[in-house]
Amino acid sequence: MKLLIKLSYLGENFCGYQVQSEGRSVQGELTRAAAELFGARCDITGCSRTDSGVHANCFCATVSERESGKLDTSLPLERIPRALNAHLPDDISVFSAEWVDDGFHPRYDVRYKEYIYRIYVGQNRDPFERGRSLFLGRDIDADSLDRMNLAASQMVGKHDFTSFMACGSNVCSTVREVIYADVTRERNIVTFRVAADGFLYNMVRIMTGTLLSVAQGKTDPYAISEIIEAKDRNRAGMTAPPEGLYLNKVEY
Amino acid sequence: MKLLIKLSYLGENFCGYQVQSEGRSVQGELTRAAAELFGARCDITGCSRTDSGVHANCFCATVSERESGKLDTSLPLERIPRALNAHLPDDISVFSAEWVDDGFHPRYDVRYKEYIYRIYVGQNRDPFERGRSLFLGRDIDADSLDRMNLAASQMVGKHDFTSFMACGSNVCSTVREVIYADVTRERNIVTFRVAADGFLYNMVRIMTGTLLSVAQGKTDPYAISEIIEAKDRNRAGMTAPPEGLYLNKVEY
Repeated sequence: MKLLIKLSYLGENFCGYQVQSEGRSVQGELTRAAAELFGARCDITGCSRTDSGVHANCFCATVSERESGKLDTSLPLERIPRALNAHLPDDISVFSAEWVDDGFHPRYDVRYKEYIYRIYVGQNRDPFERGRSLFLGRDIDADSLDRMNLAASQMVGKHDFTSFMACGSNVCSTVREVIYADVTRERNIVTFRVAADGFLYNMVRIMTGTLLSVAQGKTDPYAISEIIEAKDRNRAGMTAPPEGLYLNKVEY
Repeated sequence: MKLLIKLSYLGENFCGYQVQSEGRSVQGELTRAAAELFGARCDITGCSRTDSGVHANCFCATVSERESGKLDTSLPLERIPRALNAHLPDDISVFSAEWVDDGFHPRYDVRYKEYIYRIYVGQNRDPFERGRSLFLGRDIDADSLDRMNLAASQMVGKHDFTSFMACGSNVCSTVREVIYADVTRERNIVTFRVAADGFLYNMVRIMTGTLLSVAQGKTDPYAISEIIEAKDRNRAGMTAPPEGLYLNKVEY
């Protein structure tokens, strides 16, 4: 058996999820904490690779010993989150742990993932939102929100999302199925929510940039299908900055 | 006329509101920003002195030129918050500005101030709450919440709050009138809210520590009146840490 853990993290002070030659990574912290807790070198395999500054409300990863590919511990399952947290810095928190089969893969076995992108639309910035949302510096009115939703609805379905992928990415297939995509508002926060069976590099951030272009009236909401069909990154909007992005849900 | 500004700040990276010989202060940042915007040395007078790590959702301060004690600017009032913010770091945000008489004093003219203290009661810490609430590490059940409210209600009224003042403080009078005090819960956050015509040094943090002792069953909720009457700091609970405390409202 391997251990599947669910965790949240504040991306602000990480170089991203994955271990890099330089900088603090979530994977690096988890690898160290697991070795300390379980007394063996461990492999941590994540469900996704979030970029520097990107947050997670729910990130999934497996923990197994490097030698055996399994994990052996006498710790009761319900005590593992707290025990791991005792070895982790306070910008990461493990909130659940369960046993999964050796064959389980936290990335390949994902049915769908949900990301949210938070945009702060208040007139003056909010210090409590620093690094946690995009400060737009202008409002998004009800009409613009409707247009964003109209545009988002055209992203739903199985499409080749080449137009919404960072240039220079190298993947086998650029086809992904978007299950739902919508935009809602609560007070000064506009949230774009999107779920898919997988995401291309920078896909949600480019989708967000495109929806912001729709909000500003620069892109027609009905043009999204055409932008998708063009398979041309230059047709979509800018890449929104990382601080508004959260991995929000992972379903197996 | 002087300028009355309302602002919010994240206390995490400040040595407190007031200028100190070492460290970043809110007053120091405001003084610099005002000088840059208005082109003259300015005095900033705040409504209160928050400690290092304490936050403000609404803090009030006046801005006047050091020479004249007044402020002269051709900037329209509604543009001042944004103009000041352009000179301020992103953990401070001015959200309102109005003209007040020369005689107005942001501290002495306060009718009452409201503070809130946020306590995170989820089992595992939340990285997004780091530095923004007290992580209790245990739950507060409905019964305990009721007892906290019973205790808080006995703090209401005009009392000598010596028992709830940090030792070594030097003030003319230790009598303050608490207007309301209650404890509520929303998901994993328990919030103590208290308003008074003034607060002694560490008063809200000692009140919070005492309420937490009530929640734990270590202090009888009916003992609060007695603790107040004792005028003895040793009778009250511990001083809760600064990160859960927010200046929330100021009424003139």
